Amino acid sequence: MQDPLKIAVVGSGLVGTLLAIYLKKAGHTVHVFDRSPDIRKIQFSGRSINLVMSNRGWKALRDIGLDDEIKKIGIPVDKRAIHMAGKPLNYQYYGQDGEAIFSLSRGILNRRMIDLAEEAGVEFFFDQKVWDVNLTVPSLQIGETERGEWTEHKYDKIFGADGAFSRVRHRMQRQSMFNYSQEFLKLGYKELHIPANADGSHKLDKNSLHIWPRGEFMLMALANPDGSFTCTLFMPHEGANSFENLTDKNLLVAFFAKHFPDTKEVIPNLVEDFFKNPTSYLVTMKCYPWTSTDKVALIGDACHAIVPFYGHGMNAGFEDITVLNNLMNQYENDWETIFKEYEKSRKPNTDAIAELSYRNFMEMSSKTADEKFLLQKKIEKWFSEKHPEKWLPLYSRVTFSLNPYSEALKIGDFQNQIMEEILQTQNIEQKWNAPETEARILELLEKKI
Amino acid sequence: MQDPLKIAVVGSGLVGTLLAIYLKKAGHTVHVFDRSPDIRKIQFSGRSINLVMSNRGWKALRDIGLDDEIKKIGIPVDKRAIHMAGKPLNYQYYGQDGEAIFSLSRGILNRRMIDLAEEAGVEFFFDQKVWDVNLTVPSLQIGETERGEWTEHKYDKIFGADGAFSRVRHRMQRQSMFNYSQEFLKLGYKELHIPANADGSHKLDKNSLHIWPRGEFMLMALANPDGSFTCTLFMPHEGANSFENLTDKNLLVAFFAKHFPDTKEVIPNLVEDFFKNPTSYLVTMKCYPWTSTDKVALIGDACHAIVPFYGHGMNAGFEDITVLNNLMNQYENDWETIFKEYEKSRKPNTDAIAELSYRNFMEMSSKTADEKFLLQKKIEKWFSEKHPEKWLPLYSRVTFSLNPYSEALKIGDFQNQIMEEILQTQNIEQKWNAPETEARILELLEKKI
Repeated sequence: MQDPLKIAVVGSGLVGTLLAIYLKKAGHTVHVFDRSPDIRKIQFSGRSINLVMSNRGWKALRDIGLDDEIKKIGIPVDKRAIHMAGKPLNYQYYGQDGEAIFSLSRGILNRRMIDLAEEAGVEFFFDQKVWDVNLTVPSLQIGETERGEWTEHKYDKIFGADGAFSRVRHRMQRQSMFNYSQEFLKLGYKELHIPANADGSHKLDKNSLHIWPRGEFMLMALANPDGSFTCTLFMPHEGANSFENLTDKNLLVAFFAKHFPDTKEVIPNLVEDFFKNPTSYLVTMKCYPWTSTDKVALIGDACHAIVPFYGHGMNAGFEDITVLNNLMNQYENDWETIFKEYEKSRKPNTDAIAELSYRNFMEMSSKTADEKFLLQKKIEKWFSEKHPEKWLPLYSRVTFSLNPYSEALKIGDFQNQIMEEILQTQNIEQKWNAPETEARILELLEKKI
Repeated sequence: MQDPLKIAVVGSGLVGTLLAIYLKKAGHTVHVFDRSPDIRKIQFSGRSINLVMSNRGWKALRDIGLDDEIKKIGIPVDKRAIHMAGKPLNYQYYGQDGEAIFSLSRGILNRRMIDLAEEAGVEFFFDQKVWDVNLTVPSLQIGETERGEWTEHKYDKIFGADGAFSRVRHRMQRQSMFNYSQEFLKLGYKELHIPANADGSHKLDKNSLHIWPRGEFMLMALANPDGSFTCTLFMPHEGANSFENLTDKNLLVAFFAKHFPDTKEVIPNLVEDFFKNPTSYLVTMKCYPWTSTDKVALIGDACHAIVPFYGHGMNAGFEDITVLNNLMNQYENDWETIFKEYEKSRKPNTDAIAELSYRNFMEMSSKTADEKFLLQKKIEKWFSEKHPEKWLPLYSRVTFSLNPYSEALKIGDFQNQIMEEILQTQNIEQKWNAPETEARILELLEKKI
């Protein structure tokens, strides 16, 4: 057991709130600060992408007994549904029978988790702007404006769960030997909306992640429990097919009619949503170290913001909590060791999921419509069912296992090399499940990674 | 001719001061702000590495008529002098006969340049701390402390020449789509000092860059006009041979006696200097964009801080000024185009010199003592003298030419591939200048880069 401390968590997002629950249940006094109003009392922002919870996320919830609560507001999604113009829907299953990710509205999930945290005894302070952090006291500097009066709030520990533009990290960034990078994609995104049918049912299959892959841009949709879908249009900020070029109603409607004709029926408020909702940015942020002495630590997006194409931002953040909690149990009051081991063990894994997420845009927007890629998936599925101990496909290792992300990246690259070679076999379209193909894969697997 | 404007330059370092001279001579009113006191009125910091001026730096000075003034305070350096324990000094010439870089004390150079700028009519404001910048007015926010009262100073253009930790960039960094990275080396450095002889002469050959290459760490020395040398010890912050481990006098003296025995005579104040002078950090910083609309631009270390191992930090910054000045002459009052073309043309080149500088630590600290590397240099020199139009060695292309850095990096990598292959020839030690070696290099050069 740890000695009880007074701990501040900056940020009442998903990671901050779940961390607060863990810390509270470990016996600490926990105050959560957020610069925004209580999300339970305001409208959602119109700039969110639906989340998908998978194994790593569920483990963090299950370990603290909250998984059943959250499953109630999620919708299982076991496949991709690929929308190609003039072709029937193509379904691509994610894993084995029954394996599914869960679609969750960020807003609904966040509200529910804050409720659960308050029930556990966590105290929330909204509309409290943290402008600076003293890393040695440690303390928070809170005030109305950046240049106005601040009051100092002292704690035993401070956690920065304040997202990609973290103020806590901002202070750490001014120290020597702090490595940092932020890289924006040329791609932005915009939230759109598919409402429910009059009877509350979904207009599309709710158990699919719907993708309209169009190469440089794509549309996707994930179901909500109320019968609606949250859609996201990913597209370059500038260039031929870009947000910059869709400047008026006519251009927008023509663009959708050309590229997404089957959405006309299901997105009735396209024009209104498109021009009302903001165009958002996508950034990959990396930094190191994540902790300052035994006093202050970063967690979630505050130390590893990634692009959303693997659906792992929240899952990676929740896994930070699992790792931190295990270390708290192991090292008890030795917070210096807890923090050192935490950052050391997480860093290679969050770097790996950043890379995998970045690459996955290509897979979603182009490869899902590519014959060669579909053949590769078919071979991998067939071989993996015959030799489950020898071949776990990359997506499954990332999403349906708890194996380290860094291992998934490494093994995934090795598997890809093998598949590249297999796909060059003459007449592979006919021989994809022939004994000689199986033998060749087994032989290639014998090589060292 | 440009219409005369009121321009602020933040930072009175080498790049800021030279830029101010260019802007003043182009007809503008120029105010230079620096958060530090006037360097002409204070002692030097004890944390500086001597600079080496080479072709790119000289060009920027020559174009504005200042090269002769600065040559007076520089010392030509035409070779490396390698100090290996128990071996005679090994001299490695940098280029052709007469080609030399110039050793300059940062402090002395900076003082002289501020004098020259004042003579040209630039106005300097020292002890003026810029805390923030309004990018749209544009204006500077200046005050005693970050949290105290600020006054706003409006200008037509603002240049951030305020170094690796630029406040101007700091404001740009908070904009969307601003890419940024800072990466610290595990290596730090410390300034040491070789005083002049009693008669004012140098204790070592003044026309050499002296290196004591020891693999993971190294010592170097560059001459000053007063007979002294500025020495720099580069060493890891932590680990076996590290700053962290040299905690007292005895350890330090034993370390130098073991690794740098021939310095005992020439560094009399080793202990005092070592513990008085700070251990400094080495960082590579990259960002993009470098400009904000047609109002604000970054220059020098503020947008491309590099590690010092190629001696090109100042040269790259001065080349920024050459490029900017050419664009000012070409586009006159079209500052938007000037700024866009400036950042677009400089970025790939400053990325390239960052990479070359990073790699050069290995060359200086290890390869200069390696037989294979010396053989490679010998072959390159021989071949390049026979075929000057076909082979300009990398160091010469970077340092004694004005060809783009990005081209130097690319061609250098190609040349290295060729040399790797040549060095694998049987008995290359004997055949290094044989006709068949020459023929083979010519053949390999025919391949496309």
